[in-house]
Amino acid sequence: MFGKETYVQRRALLKKKLGSGVLLFLGNDECGLNYESNTFRYRQDSTFLYYFGLPFAGLSAIIDIDDEKEIIFGDELTIDDIVWMGVQPTLKEKSERVGVTRTLPSAEIVNYLHQCVQKGKSIHYLPPYRAEHKLKLMDWLGIPPVRQEGSVPFIRAVVEQRNHKSAEEIIEIEKACDVTADMHITAMKVLRPGMKEFEVVAAMEAVAAAAGCELSFATIATINGQTLHNHYHGNTVKSGDLFLIDAGAETEMGYAGDMSSTIPADKKFTTRQREVYEIQNAMHLESVKALRPGIPYMDVYDLSARVMVEGLKGLGLMKGNADDAVREGAHALFYPHGLGHMMGLDVHDMENLGELWVGYNGEPKSTQFGRKSQRLAIPLEPGFVHTVEPGIYFIPELIDMWKADKKFADFINYDKVDTYKNFGGIRNEEDYLITETGARRLGKKIPLTPEEVEEIR
Amino acid sequence: MFGKETYVQRRALLKKKLGSGVLLFLGNDECGLNYESNTFRYRQDSTFLYYFGLPFAGLSAIIDIDDEKEIIFGDELTIDDIVWMGVQPTLKEKSERVGVTRTLPSAEIVNYLHQCVQKGKSIHYLPPYRAEHKLKLMDWLGIPPVRQEGSVPFIRAVVEQRNHKSAEEIIEIEKACDVTADMHITAMKVLRPGMKEFEVVAAMEAVAAAAGCELSFATIATINGQTLHNHYHGNTVKSGDLFLIDAGAETEMGYAGDMSSTIPADKKFTTRQREVYEIQNAMHLESVKALRPGIPYMDVYDLSARVMVEGLKGLGLMKGNADDAVREGAHALFYPHGLGHMMGLDVHDMENLGELWVGYNGEPKSTQFGRKSQRLAIPLEPGFVHTVEPGIYFIPELIDMWKADKKFADFINYDKVDTYKNFGGIRNEEDYLITETGARRLGKKIPLTPEEVEEIR
Repeated sequence: MFGKETYVQRRALLKKKLGSGVLLFLGNDECGLNYESNTFRYRQDSTFLYYFGLPFAGLSAIIDIDDEKEIIFGDELTIDDIVWMGVQPTLKEKSERVGVTRTLPSAEIVNYLHQCVQKGKSIHYLPPYRAEHKLKLMDWLGIPPVRQEGSVPFIRAVVEQRNHKSAEEIIEIEKACDVTADMHITAMKVLRPGMKEFEVVAAMEAVAAAAGCELSFATIATINGQTLHNHYHGNTVKSGDLFLIDAGAETEMGYAGDMSSTIPADKKFTTRQREVYEIQNAMHLESVKALRPGIPYMDVYDLSARVMVEGLKGLGLMKGNADDAVREGAHALFYPHGLGHMMGLDVHDMENLGELWVGYNGEPKSTQFGRKSQRLAIPLEPGFVHTVEPGIYFIPELIDMWKADKKFADFINYDKVDTYKNFGGIRNEEDYLITETGARRLGKKIPLTPEEVEEIR
Repeated sequence: MFGKETYVQRRALLKKKLGSGVLLFLGNDECGLNYESNTFRYRQDSTFLYYFGLPFAGLSAIIDIDDEKEIIFGDELTIDDIVWMGVQPTLKEKSERVGVTRTLPSAEIVNYLHQCVQKGKSIHYLPPYRAEHKLKLMDWLGIPPVRQEGSVPFIRAVVEQRNHKSAEEIIEIEKACDVTADMHITAMKVLRPGMKEFEVVAAMEAVAAAAGCELSFATIATINGQTLHNHYHGNTVKSGDLFLIDAGAETEMGYAGDMSSTIPADKKFTTRQREVYEIQNAMHLESVKALRPGIPYMDVYDLSARVMVEGLKGLGLMKGNADDAVREGAHALFYPHGLGHMMGLDVHDMENLGELWVGYNGEPKSTQFGRKSQRLAIPLEPGFVHTVEPGIYFIPELIDMWKADKKFADFINYDKVDTYKNFGGIRNEEDYLITETGARRLGKKIPLTPEEVEEIR
């Protein structure tokens, strides 16, 4: 937890931005895997963490701007709780650590909200992303789940604040990035043909656990890198395979790291693997070079896509004008996702508040396949922390579908592409902070160029 | 997944037991940690797994006994799903693997259920344990969350079936137990003073991951064993500490193992640690000796408690008649939990269906502190799989509370107990199958006697 002043100031700024009304913060509860008391690891809601810092289940909070009150709602422990879960400070003590002096029992929140409604105050809440939130909003405010859209002014104020990372946040994020880098370096060292994918996962996750970290998202570690979010780990790694890893650590305070790497199962890349890897590497390095305040991240995405098209033209996989190919969306056959996303207390920072507000400033998004997966489009600003993660994939089902439709036949040499259908996929990913003058990589460096990768194998 | 016939037969038996009506099975959905698409590991509902075998999100099923129909409801993958999540068999193909030939899109379930209501069929559902289930039951059947109590005939039929493990289930459970034992053996070998608790956790969890297993519950690995469900792993282990581990693996099919062990941070127990450990060991060994078909497990709990009281009398911590102490509940100061619980597809098997049905056959439970935490009371039957896990703890807050109330002063020597307040806790746990003639330990043996424990250190 940061010092008390951090939370007091964050709330003060939020109140100033909103000016009036009542802000409702839903903390997260425990969630049972297969019965209520067998819970997943506990994860507090990130906005609750940002403004109230307390990583405990069963809490809600209200900032009543009109009445100048900040209240945390929750219940004190019983002796049964202490026997089973240990001694904890009281709710009052915990709340004081984040500068909140008013606490009330959970059951009181309904009355408080009803009184706000009676007095004609406007109640602001954020869009729910868990079923438990939907039940609460229905129960407390009488809003049915399909109508629970959240308050745009509240969303925008939170996004504006959380998009700009403070110095103390950057230290935390960099901790997460250092552990994340160690996870990748370990995997890069241990992978050998004949291993099961889950053995690599075990080695990586042990690095996170031994550093006192959780995972910021479910680890991807697969010989089928062409499947973007592949969480199956049961395959045996064979000589000749490419192995794609996308994994990150989360610090005790909840800050995320997120990196990707792609390595050959053998000590060296094959010629064909290296040719494609070098193109992906150029996409990555050119994108990083372009990072600076003021450049729209969608422009960097376009740049990375053009670099790929030029490269794939060199291999005879694509043809035609690269600008046209990227504008029309032909590149997305090989690069069907975005270049990166904001990162902070969430690995996709504030995805629950809506990509439209976090990465598009409310402007409409493209519906083009591939481009629509770009999560961050707006001009970069100092304090932004985001990923850089271009990729090149050969997805057999997508290739077959586009080929049958003769889609973008002016840009794609399908006969050649067909010979790459067993290639897999390549993605590399690093995390960057936008500074006043450019950008700075966060966390230890992981091997990135083909030379660096072969060196560590 | 077991063979098709297993699921067909399980459903046939269930239909025969119920005789009529419509059985609704809610599969589990994904659950987001901090936004919707950043999910916890996926875990299917265990009853859904038992009757329908499919470990995928987004499914529901209906067994319409009146109309002799079995239907799985779910949606086919889109091309976007395939790009992001890979190719999968169709729902139709998956369903056929478990002997179900009828499938319908998710959206159809509401119509189906409404038609059942119109026709006057009774709809049976199981008690919800996730907020998502509550939203569905409200949406589909119009039942508000507070009234969603589930169908007792359905619960009892499922419990009757799932309480008796088949030969193929026992093989799976034993796999989970073997990996669980390896996790404990690894921890017992690696622990050294100066380590952080989470380093031990990392080593244990890597064993599970490298065996292709998940965890059946959140690992307990702590120098504060007196806190029964302590999931904090941030302490440094010091010479002189006792270290308590309670952890288990879950196989790919969902079956659980669950063992506990307690070891000294040093190579040897101190004299005081060993004295208490020997009492706990006697509780364990005497309980195991008593296991056989027909003996009520509450009797074995009483036995284990009496063995403890006799032992603690020897140390001057308790006094008086052991039978009386246990009947009145004085033992629970040191042994505030039960002796064990059913284990299968859930580590506390079917806890979501209600302990009253699983472990008490519907008979009322004691409200006595300690005894009320015994999850299994009924006479043991061949095919039951359950844990044996007596414990002895010194919980400072509980000791202070009871002492202030002069509670059970005839049985407890509080002045002596006060000198043990920094002792911690001891629990050991193994998993047993009740056979026709007695009981068999499942999985590899882990060190249990003080000699065995010191040998592995």
